[in-house]
Amino acid sequence: MDNLQEIIARIQPPDPALGEQAQAHLDNLTKPPGSLGRLEELARRLCVIRGSLELTQPRPAVAVFAADHGVALSGVSPFPREVTAQMVLNFLAGGAGINAIARQVGASVWVVDVGVDHDFEAVEGLVQAKVARGTADLSREPAMTHEQAEEAILVGARVAGELIAQGHDLLIPGEMGIGNTTPSAALAAAFTGRPPAQVTGRGTGLDDEGLERKIALIDKALALHRPDPSDPLGTLAKLGGLEIAAICGYCLAAAAQRVPVILDGLISTAGGLVASRLCPAAREYFLAGHASVEVGQAAMLEAMELKPILYLDLRLGEGTGAALAVAVVRAAVAIYNEMATFDSAGVSNKEA
Amino acid sequence: MDNLQEIIARIQPPDPALGEQAQAHLDNLTKPPGSLGRLEELARRLCVIRGSLELTQPRPAVAVFAADHGVALSGVSPFPREVTAQMVLNFLAGGAGINAIARQVGASVWVVDVGVDHDFEAVEGLVQAKVARGTADLSREPAMTHEQAEEAILVGARVAGELIAQGHDLLIPGEMGIGNTTPSAALAAAFTGRPPAQVTGRGTGLDDEGLERKIALIDKALALHRPDPSDPLGTLAKLGGLEIAAICGYCLAAAAQRVPVILDGLISTAGGLVASRLCPAAREYFLAGHASVEVGQAAMLEAMELKPILYLDLRLGEGTGAALAVAVVRAAVAIYNEMATFDSAGVSNKEA
Repeated sequence: MDNLQEIIARIQPPDPALGEQAQAHLDNLTKPPGSLGRLEELARRLCVIRGSLELTQPRPAVAVFAADHGVALSGVSPFPREVTAQMVLNFLAGGAGINAIARQVGASVWVVDVGVDHDFEAVEGLVQAKVARGTADLSREPAMTHEQAEEAILVGARVAGELIAQGHDLLIPGEMGIGNTTPSAALAAAFTGRPPAQVTGRGTGLDDEGLERKIALIDKALALHRPDPSDPLGTLAKLGGLEIAAICGYCLAAAAQRVPVILDGLISTAGGLVASRLCPAAREYFLAGHASVEVGQAAMLEAMELKPILYLDLRLGEGTGAALAVAVVRAAVAIYNEMATFDSAGVSNKEA
Repeated sequence: MDNLQEIIARIQPPDPALGEQAQAHLDNLTKPPGSLGRLEELARRLCVIRGSLELTQPRPAVAVFAADHGVALSGVSPFPREVTAQMVLNFLAGGAGINAIARQVGASVWVVDVGVDHDFEAVEGLVQAKVARGTADLSREPAMTHEQAEEAILVGARVAGELIAQGHDLLIPGEMGIGNTTPSAALAAAFTGRPPAQVTGRGTGLDDEGLERKIALIDKALALHRPDPSDPLGTLAKLGGLEIAAICGYCLAAAAQRVPVILDGLISTAGGLVASRLCPAAREYFLAGHASVEVGQAAMLEAMELKPILYLDLRLGEGTGAALAVAVVRAAVAIYNEMATFDSAGVSNKEA
């Protein structure tokens, strides 16, 4: 197993010159130049990421990283903590939102227990890689030790490596963890420098009072830990969570193998942001699947200079918005590969 | 063949109560209530449109209506007029943007010659229904006679009827016609009351001077014809075009059979807007596929109280953005049909 520094060392910034060559091809297709807008941008980005002017239809996979959170006992979610484990079983049975959407876009779904407070039996499709039975409560103590954070990162990296070895070439980080919008918002505040009130949302459905309590809790946690954003691993360890660390490693390992990652909502984007702070070149391999209702996500995407593909007012997580964005990526690859050129179709081009 | 009044008479406003029942089902699925945002909205709307709480995956079809425009000889497009006919052949050969995207989302593509200035040989997949060899130049005379406009509407209605008879239950209007953003912007101005400068865009790629010329031409046409928006058929006839009229009829015939229509960009939306002025209930059957770069589209969607599904900076037309939105509709149907309920999955619901 690689260690974290070895993974980071393998991440190379992609060559932007390929983007111009890809655009030259796009401009020769039977359409006004630029008229397919962000589909053209996606095709260019995929060429740059893959380091090739040849694109193939992606073989996407979603890894849903599940973990529990000490902070969930502090009233930051309207759902009880046992829902994390119950939802893991729902993912495995194929009944969750991510399952329905992944089936539609032809993506595989893996479920990874990186820290659920429950003992699962061996089930097909479940990767058992529990680092701890949930994090500690970040409002009182560090959510994880440095060792736990690094171990969870390596779980994510190993999962990415296995998915890529199986032929998947487009990775989506999904997640489940009751309470996990709290550490995600805390990470957003710590890394973007914005006050918690600007990056904290209602999660699964807090009322006004609950939202105020959540913001106060994050304020308290940041005052307690004083996380240093120039120490991404330390900041991640202090604020949590185990699934966010795993997503961070998953993103890094994908980038190291030039595999594009579609980030999902708040939690997934927090994992991607930590990865981009550990290795700035990593973000060149990320696409933003959608604009979440959770406000902290936009702040983190902005920090990574990523623009969402979809705007559908989603706030479920699990990887759902990113999985749905696969349909747009497929369309981008299809136009790049399948459209006729002006010459081949005998269509007159724009008058000079 | 029905006449226009008979089609309109069959359009019934759908029953909004079904939307509440659909939402009750959605709220019982294993996710926080409302967390799938616009996917939930789409599932609700489909239930209302179909008049049923049972949804099935759609069998979509695109009809690309092609026609020429007298105004294309007045310098409103950087592409020569013969491109309309050349692109019809490209659609039939499967090499255009709409073909690539329709294949991705599993939609059939029909091509309909409703007014191209070219004699096509009989080819599989081409519906020959030429009403005229293009419109007259709206800046000098009425683009169509009333009879031509109604005949083109009935072409579109007939195509919709045939597609529905073949089992298609989600219809997309596509179009091709060099010069056709000019009549579309003119219709947007006539029906929304906005000045042409606010609803006129660059089409396939006009420069600043070209855009000014196009706006001046539309100003002149509106001053010449003084279209009365309370006379939708007369306004359509004066401003054109034949494919816009066909799209109008296609939308009306779909609504008459409770079949949802996904509007595409500027031209497609202009056809939908004329339909909604001929029969206000028709718009209840429309979805807006995407937000076009062409500014007039947003004004017309607003007039119909429709919100785009996708925001991808597209301006190609042909039905491309609407076809891509089928992927989102499929996801909406998938979550509605395939997600487990809290009870069936044994997942604890939100605490009261």
